[in-house]
Amino acid sequence: MSEAVNFKYIGTRPVRPDGVDKVTGRANYGADANLPGMIHGVVLRSPHAHAIIKKIDLSQVRLLDGIYAAVSGNDFPEVSSGSMGGEGGGDYKDLAANIMARNKVLYHGHAVAAVAARTRELAVEALALIQVEYEILDPVMTLDAAMAEDAAILDESMFTQGVDPKPKYPSNIASRIEFKRGDIEQGFLEADIIVESEFRTPTVHQGYIEPHACLASINEGGQATLWCSTQGHFDVRAASAKVLNMDLCDIKVIPSEIGGGFGGKTVVYQEPVAILLSRISGRPVKMVMDRDEVFRASGPASASHTRVKIGARSDGTLTAMSCWMAFEAGAFKGSAIMPGAMCIFTPYKVANFYIEGFDVVVNKPKVAAYRAPGAPQAMYACESLMDELARKLEMDPLELRLVNAVEEGVQAAYGPKFNAIGFRECLEVAKQHPNYTRALKEGQGRGVAAGFWFNVGMQSSAEVHINENGTVMVIEGNPDIGGSRASMALMAAETLGVPYEKVRVVVADTENAGYTNVTGGSRVTFATGMAVIQAAQDIISQAKQRAAATWELDEDQVDWQNGHAIPMPGVNADVEPLSLARIAANSGRTGGPLLGRASLNAKGAGPGFSVNIAEVAVDRETGKTDVIGFTAIQDAGKAIHPAYVEGQLQGGAAQGIGWALNEEYIYDEKGVMQNAGFLDYRIPVASDLPKIDTHIVEVANTAHPYGVRGVGETPIVAPLAAVANAVRDAIGVRITELPLSPSRVLESIDGA
Amino acid sequence: MSEAVNFKYIGTRPVRPDGVDKVTGRANYGADANLPGMIHGVVLRSPHAHAIIKKIDLSQVRLLDGIYAAVSGNDFPEVSSGSMGGEGGGDYKDLAANIMARNKVLYHGHAVAAVAARTRELAVEALALIQVEYEILDPVMTLDAAMAEDAAILDESMFTQGVDPKPKYPSNIASRIEFKRGDIEQGFLEADIIVESEFRTPTVHQGYIEPHACLASINEGGQATLWCSTQGHFDVRAASAKVLNMDLCDIKVIPSEIGGGFGGKTVVYQEPVAILLSRISGRPVKMVMDRDEVFRASGPASASHTRVKIGARSDGTLTAMSCWMAFEAGAFKGSAIMPGAMCIFTPYKVANFYIEGFDVVVNKPKVAAYRAPGAPQAMYACESLMDELARKLEMDPLELRLVNAVEEGVQAAYGPKFNAIGFRECLEVAKQHPNYTRALKEGQGRGVAAGFWFNVGMQSSAEVHINENGTVMVIEGNPDIGGSRASMALMAAETLGVPYEKVRVVVADTENAGYTNVTGGSRVTFATGMAVIQAAQDIISQAKQRAAATWELDEDQVDWQNGHAIPMPGVNADVEPLSLARIAANSGRTGGPLLGRASLNAKGAGPGFSVNIAEVAVDRETGKTDVIGFTAIQDAGKAIHPAYVEGQLQGGAAQGIGWALNEEYIYDEKGVMQNAGFLDYRIPVASDLPKIDTHIVEVANTAHPYGVRGVGETPIVAPLAAVANAVRDAIGVRITELPLSPSRVLESIDGA
Repeated sequence: MSEAVNFKYIGTRPVRPDGVDKVTGRANYGADANLPGMIHGVVLRSPHAHAIIKKIDLSQVRLLDGIYAAVSGNDFPEVSSGSMGGEGGGDYKDLAANIMARNKVLYHGHAVAAVAARTRELAVEALALIQVEYEILDPVMTLDAAMAEDAAILDESMFTQGVDPKPKYPSNIASRIEFKRGDIEQGFLEADIIVESEFRTPTVHQGYIEPHACLASINEGGQATLWCSTQGHFDVRAASAKVLNMDLCDIKVIPSEIGGGFGGKTVVYQEPVAILLSRISGRPVKMVMDRDEVFRASGPASASHTRVKIGARSDGTLTAMSCWMAFEAGAFKGSAIMPGAMCIFTPYKVANFYIEGFDVVVNKPKVAAYRAPGAPQAMYACESLMDELARKLEMDPLELRLVNAVEEGVQAAYGPKFNAIGFRECLEVAKQHPNYTRALKEGQGRGVAAGFWFNVGMQSSAEVHINENGTVMVIEGNPDIGGSRASMALMAAETLGVPYEKVRVVVADTENAGYTNVTGGSRVTFATGMAVIQAAQDIISQAKQRAAATWELDEDQVDWQNGHAIPMPGVNADVEPLSLARIAANSGRTGGPLLGRASLNAKGAGPGFSVNIAEVAVDRETGKTDVIGFTAIQDAGKAIHPAYVEGQLQGGAAQGIGWALNEEYIYDEKGVMQNAGFLDYRIPVASDLPKIDTHIVEVANTAHPYGVRGVGETPIVAPLAAVANAVRDAIGVRITELPLSPSRVLESIDGA
Repeated sequence: MSEAVNFKYIGTRPVRPDGVDKVTGRANYGADANLPGMIHGVVLRSPHAHAIIKKIDLSQVRLLDGIYAAVSGNDFPEVSSGSMGGEGGGDYKDLAANIMARNKVLYHGHAVAAVAARTRELAVEALALIQVEYEILDPVMTLDAAMAEDAAILDESMFTQGVDPKPKYPSNIASRIEFKRGDIEQGFLEADIIVESEFRTPTVHQGYIEPHACLASINEGGQATLWCSTQGHFDVRAASAKVLNMDLCDIKVIPSEIGGGFGGKTVVYQEPVAILLSRISGRPVKMVMDRDEVFRASGPASASHTRVKIGARSDGTLTAMSCWMAFEAGAFKGSAIMPGAMCIFTPYKVANFYIEGFDVVVNKPKVAAYRAPGAPQAMYACESLMDELARKLEMDPLELRLVNAVEEGVQAAYGPKFNAIGFRECLEVAKQHPNYTRALKEGQGRGVAAGFWFNVGMQSSAEVHINENGTVMVIEGNPDIGGSRASMALMAAETLGVPYEKVRVVVADTENAGYTNVTGGSRVTFATGMAVIQAAQDIISQAKQRAAATWELDEDQVDWQNGHAIPMPGVNADVEPLSLARIAANSGRTGGPLLGRASLNAKGAGPGFSVNIAEVAVDRETGKTDVIGFTAIQDAGKAIHPAYVEGQLQGGAAQGIGWALNEEYIYDEKGVMQNAGFLDYRIPVASDLPKIDTHIVEVANTAHPYGVRGVGETPIVAPLAAVANAVRDAIGVRITELPLSPSRVLESIDGA
């Protein structure tokens, strides 16, 4: 598709509409909302990783001058169990218990009470007056500990799903899943060579720059307004309503600009607390996490433990792939085990595979989505072992992947048949890339890895209003994280045939936008973009009707080209083309303003494939790894705004490199996090990174009018293995646990 | 229609959705918007009523510490002449010159410069540093003076329209209009009795409680956001864009709650100035008029001079009506002469009429719309003389009107044929009303008068979004002045069959609402209501489709009743009715969220007729008139929320009583207003008013699905004459000039 179509606006790189406000500091983020009479809410957090709350006494803090409200779990309504739906999944009862502990604290940092005071300083000070009696329990801090027979149990009412129909004992294993195809034993029998290893990844955080922040104000009639930084304000509305037993239509959520989310801002933490404090105090309540709270109490990505086994013929053809995967869910069930299992072997055609996965609770913060949730951990294991396989076979690692790469018509491991996909194209680009072939120096190494993410569709709404001068307003409901205002404007401009500069995109609040799922799942440009295109087509249809009425022609005698209504070829009409601006100026006389709308539950999200090439230099004396080159190649289907696709590729690489080399939650034996700050939890900074080269492959997604497939998540999937494979190449030893920190690398070198 | 239909929600009196915020002080009005770094703009106003600006020097003020910007007319772009359209009409060039004088000042209070400073106090102080050189001209302060042969001319380029094709001399008469039917001379020949008189009304102000206020912020990319108190934010956008030569889509206007408008907030005064000051200073600029500025520089209603002559047979049948009308436009052309002329004789069937009208400029602020613009002045003249006619004929004044009342099928004086109207019904109600028949005491008097306003339709847009729990968001673009959120919610609830409490109405800004004309012309409940009903019907149509798909039926086999999809009678389907909530919950599986929309240019606004009964007691010693009883009877077509219709009737009566008895602009000989404040310009306060009795007549408007006709403006039309006729009844003398202030009444009593 993409090769055949000449686009006028799509594929160009105009300035983003939100750019000026963001670079000048005018843009409002979560903490920038303020109201007269506003007070400040802060949370008292558990000092213990695992304990029973025997008593909470708020009486003293409530007496303090300047304290307007104090609440604990008892002040919230009971919330019954029920699925939250959406990308994050999860259960409303768990959500409520995570927002404010009831009876038990499950991690160091778990919220147990909150106060609102005249100033934030006073509120923080006042926390000391809250008396909590705990009965301390053993903390369960690792997968091994949690899955051990004699493990302390986090939730006595939790029984493993997916094993026994009627399990007898409670367990920290929330559920077990299994995917399989073919005959796994036969597959390994057919193999000329079998490789096997196990891999571990740590708990890591998304590391968004902007902490969670909100401002809530509820009036005496029970109508609440909430400003917050979120990836999905409709989800915030639904979750807050559920946790507070309010009606959806009594909560208006206004999304701020968002200083990064990466999946972590799909979850509600403070918002219902702020509403409740506002209700009690009668004042607007602002709550802003500090960085320590973000680390200790917002959702990181699952730590994982994966055992993989791969069998192949001597020509590289895979015959069998199997794995055992366990993912940490944190304090409440619901890790990324399912999508991890959906991704791990999906890039490869293999007749026989077996995947077993476990969702395991531990005394850490409940995990949240992190960019392609589960896929980086899963594919780190698969792609590391594929690298070992190539080494054993003495095959080029890209060639090994080309031999086995999935393509159009192949059934994906997780079910559906692939439409046109660009995996092979990415591998071919990588093979030819100068960054793959240039010579390396002593102590340097190169690694490659493939990435995969299935992408999602979900529900989106869009409206298009034509101003009286013909300029275009696009109203949609996805917070703009990666430049979606620009991409929506480009798609609307392309569809309507009007200049990009004449299209303005509004990210509307829950009152003004039609229901729209979260900015996540790499769905926005695909699904919301499709809604925008359809809403623009609705406008074209009306514009043609107006032109037909003006010209006294039938509707089907009018065509739309380059932003103008024209008579269809062959229609004999002595008329001038009518521009959208002319039609808009006359719309009062032809039936009123032009309003377009579309809503959908998008199907056919095109899967995203990538290939990364990492080049590293390892200092054998210090164990420090420098990434000296990084090349991200990815199939975007069609890059609506190529600069922002490149930005996604580069950002995903940066985060993946951090995950590979440095990032991890460090806990002491009591379950207390030791590095809850950016000084000790080390994400890459600019000087840690090379220029990240990008190459966009475009194999159009046939389910989208302009060929779009999601690009936001795939970029973080391959870097973990690519970097690990490069380090292996540089030091000659395979390290099977992330991060590849200097101490661990040094240990491995010394061990070898 | 209304008698035949049983409504479930329409006609009830639920609490208004905006009520809680308004009574608790939470609601944000124009001056409540604040931004970080905000500075304050104030305007330097002309001390002269008529002068040439020879020079403005801003150099000194610009040097003052804390002054961020200073502008005069030269800093604005040239604006070419062009009609503004909409209810207000007017010309963009005049608008620009009214916002900031160019070359000439035309009234005391005319803006000549503006500064923005750190504080409002500093800005006010800084005005003294602006040097303006004036050449003072003779002020033209009355219609008589303006129309005199040797009058000083306000605008040398203005030549009277509608008289000579090529007028030779400039004039203060902007235009002459003429309406006629039949043979006026023959009509008077057929009369048994002829009455004749002339009447004058003063310049009066709408007296809204909230002064004009706005906050503007423009970014470095040229995108402006404007918060303001207005009746029509789309008009503010259009006017500001025009005056500043900006693109519409670069201005976002967010309407605040509005503390009264009555037509006066359809005009832009400070908004473009604030945007320009913001552009120069790089900061948000707030501008709030004080009351003095509101009086001196915002638009009052036209002062008028009307000569009327009526001929009738001895049975009361009218044979001829003629009038000569002159209305003050203020400093720029465009008085309410046209609607005044459209209304003056319209309540009566008369074969022969002649109306001549003049639009005249004087050195006073440019007039603005004031509730049924022109009609109160015009019908004060007509209805006073009708009262005299009834006296001469010794007929009951209501009976005289019943003999001549227009009814369905009669051609209105201004053109169209009436559909069903409720004028006769109002007269009949009045005749039977106990307030018409109860005995009066010595010194008391009773007067009646009819009121008429044609009402308008114009363009409206509405969108309806269904939340995932089935609750309903209605998005529209009319600032809610008289309870329109409640009436829109009632109409949406009635149409959809869902409870009123489950419907929320959003007054959206220019980015989020579809293009919608001003809240004015008594059009909102009629036209925007119709758009809301149609958008709700769009939802019903989609809900039926979803139900049909769920049930595997054809669309036309599904009906909608009481908020549920059900199989059509006769369709054999074993299914349970599907509520809107159920359909909404499933909408993800049936095609995505439910979004409805409608736009229109409404036709068929039903004319509004009223009859008022005023009872007064006049103190013959002081000349003070007390209104001791007031009864407002009006045809609402269908009262969607009767309490707010009653509120309109009462509010119109209160304003009309003020206009009749006390209100007037008082100027000295130099054209300086002497009473620019609520202490000296006396609007009625609660203790001045009796309980105003109301009676709603409902003769359905056939052009509206629920029978609605506008109710907002008609209530102010009849009170002037009703009170004047009551005073005539009480004192036995006819006073032909308003206000009937104590001094004027005393003078008349003494003269008689």
